[in-house]
Amino acid sequence: MMKIRASEIASLAETVLIRHGVAPAYAETQVNLLLQAEMRGFASHGLLRLRRIVERIASGVSAPNATGTHEWLGQNFLAVDGQGGLGPIVALAALDTIEQRARESGIALTAIRNSNHIGMLAWYGEQMAAKGLILIAMTTSEALVHPWGGRSAMLGTNPLCIAVPANPEPLVLDMATSLVAMGKIHDYANRGVPIPAGWALDRQGDPTTDAAAAKAGAIAPFGGAKGYALGLAIEVLVTALSGAAIGTDIVGTLDSDKVCNKGDVFILISPQQGAAIEALVSAYLDDIRQCAPASPGEPVSVPGDRARRACAKSLADGVEIDAGLWRDLQSLDQISIGKVNLL
Amino acid sequence: MMKIRASEIASLAETVLIRHGVAPAYAETQVNLLLQAEMRGFASHGLLRLRRIVERIASGVSAPNATGTHEWLGQNFLAVDGQGGLGPIVALAALDTIEQRARESGIALTAIRNSNHIGMLAWYGEQMAAKGLILIAMTTSEALVHPWGGRSAMLGTNPLCIAVPANPEPLVLDMATSLVAMGKIHDYANRGVPIPAGWALDRQGDPTTDAAAAKAGAIAPFGGAKGYALGLAIEVLVTALSGAAIGTDIVGTLDSDKVCNKGDVFILISPQQGAAIEALVSAYLDDIRQCAPASPGEPVSVPGDRARRACAKSLADGVEIDAGLWRDLQSLDQISIGKVNLL
Repeated sequence: MMKIRASEIASLAETVLIRHGVAPAYAETQVNLLLQAEMRGFASHGLLRLRRIVERIASGVSAPNATGTHEWLGQNFLAVDGQGGLGPIVALAALDTIEQRARESGIALTAIRNSNHIGMLAWYGEQMAAKGLILIAMTTSEALVHPWGGRSAMLGTNPLCIAVPANPEPLVLDMATSLVAMGKIHDYANRGVPIPAGWALDRQGDPTTDAAAAKAGAIAPFGGAKGYALGLAIEVLVTALSGAAIGTDIVGTLDSDKVCNKGDVFILISPQQGAAIEALVSAYLDDIRQCAPASPGEPVSVPGDRARRACAKSLADGVEIDAGLWRDLQSLDQISIGKVNLL
Repeated sequence: MMKIRASEIASLAETVLIRHGVAPAYAETQVNLLLQAEMRGFASHGLLRLRRIVERIASGVSAPNATGTHEWLGQNFLAVDGQGGLGPIVALAALDTIEQRARESGIALTAIRNSNHIGMLAWYGEQMAAKGLILIAMTTSEALVHPWGGRSAMLGTNPLCIAVPANPEPLVLDMATSLVAMGKIHDYANRGVPIPAGWALDRQGDPTTDAAAAKAGAIAPFGGAKGYALGLAIEVLVTALSGAAIGTDIVGTLDSDKVCNKGDVFILISPQQGAAIEALVSAYLDDIRQCAPASPGEPVSVPGDRARRACAKSLADGVEIDAGLWRDLQSLDQISIGKVNLL
């Protein structure tokens, strides 16, 4: 690991995207999303993904500057065809479009298909909470998770984000419905270390602690039957609302050459209850933080707190980044991948 | 346990409510909710609750025929003051009011306070899914669950329901965010059996396997840190939207004499994507059911399937009901509790 200033990473990564045809403002947005994940220690959603984004533009399955077409299926239901645009560009354009209706009506929804990986959901939740809005966000992805009591991967890791404004800091839940990330299993495999029992099945559907075997198998849902049920509900809800693909048909967030066909759903709510209720919620969250800890010196966290602290530390001290990844980012800056270098 | 015909139980329970001033149509609705839970084997949300409902009417903290006042805080955001009405009566009136706006606009929300226990959330989810609508429902309750890494009860068991229409049967997720129900811990205590490690803390905040000690302590969230985060997000979201009480201030679903001050939130969505997408979702759910099972003879379930089968069996064979509970229901029919016997 090495430490690099956040601005230095951003500058390099934006240059790479711009060299591949992404408009400077969109490059800044996409890189901010990746960098925010990196700064929180969520490497799987961090700058690791830049190479794939560039390769997908080069292979023609991602459109570097598409923002998506918007169609109101109801006054508060915005259907978006992302036209192959970058995930955060399409998603922010959709959120921007529904924001006014959410404020006026109390609630609005956007369902997106044909867009790319939207990254760490907390990034959207924090932005909406900072505007005084509640966000519920869900997205699907390649089938990597097995049903509870089943032997093969049939669900995405299907994360859920719930963000609620509070003072001084909002609650920002952002969690995958898998027990662990597939990236973590790859990491164990790379280090030749066995994974804990219960994490995964092998290709034949049998429980395994062999990380290499798990890579070809299926990850367990978190929380047993309940986590499975939640992940399945998200899979079904996202497709029912967006018209995106479902289950093992989903491709395009782990490869560089397939049109991405997962879906995203954002529900934006204006709390409407005023400052006294926001103060009540904020005081409760502070009580939670003050709860006597099970382990002395390990205070109870509100979702979002740890990520925020890690982010502040990265900004102050520099971003911890894998040395090999940093070299790869630098090499991306030296070369053009494929045919789409427009500069 | 004994087996009683569903209609016989319903008739008796409705008579009890009517004797205590509940209008016949509301009595039928309230009893149907309790009976449906009983028929699925969810005894904690079943007829066990009838005595408390009657006692709460008798003590004047529940209003037997209130349906709540409705105020639109935005065109698609209905705030409801339940006026102490019965949970399902107030909730169905609110859902009925937002249904048309959800159909026209795509999405609408109702946030309810000052209503009573709304029971098994799946009951609402099934009704909405049968109308072709998606429901997301959440409710709060007395603080029984400890934060992950904390030593005292600060959150309700905060269930989440997600119902999505499909053929032949919808997906209906309905789960508490606690690892187990407090009722289950009471059951272990009654039988003098230790609870499994990890289920609960004692009054001092230390892990315990003593069921009696756990009754005075706190239940663990399901799924570790993630389940805690989800339960906390629900606690905060419900209060932010409804203006209801929060955390350890919540009373009124486990006692007979305090005004109930928890909140409920229902988000109703019209899928808008048409029959082809509903068919895609339905086919996927069937694929899930056909997934090779981990244990031969134990097929993978879609949330809602098991409850539906249990319900059908109870209708056909009679409802399994605790003999003591059945005697208690009969005694409720013989006596009037308190001052509110209006017949």
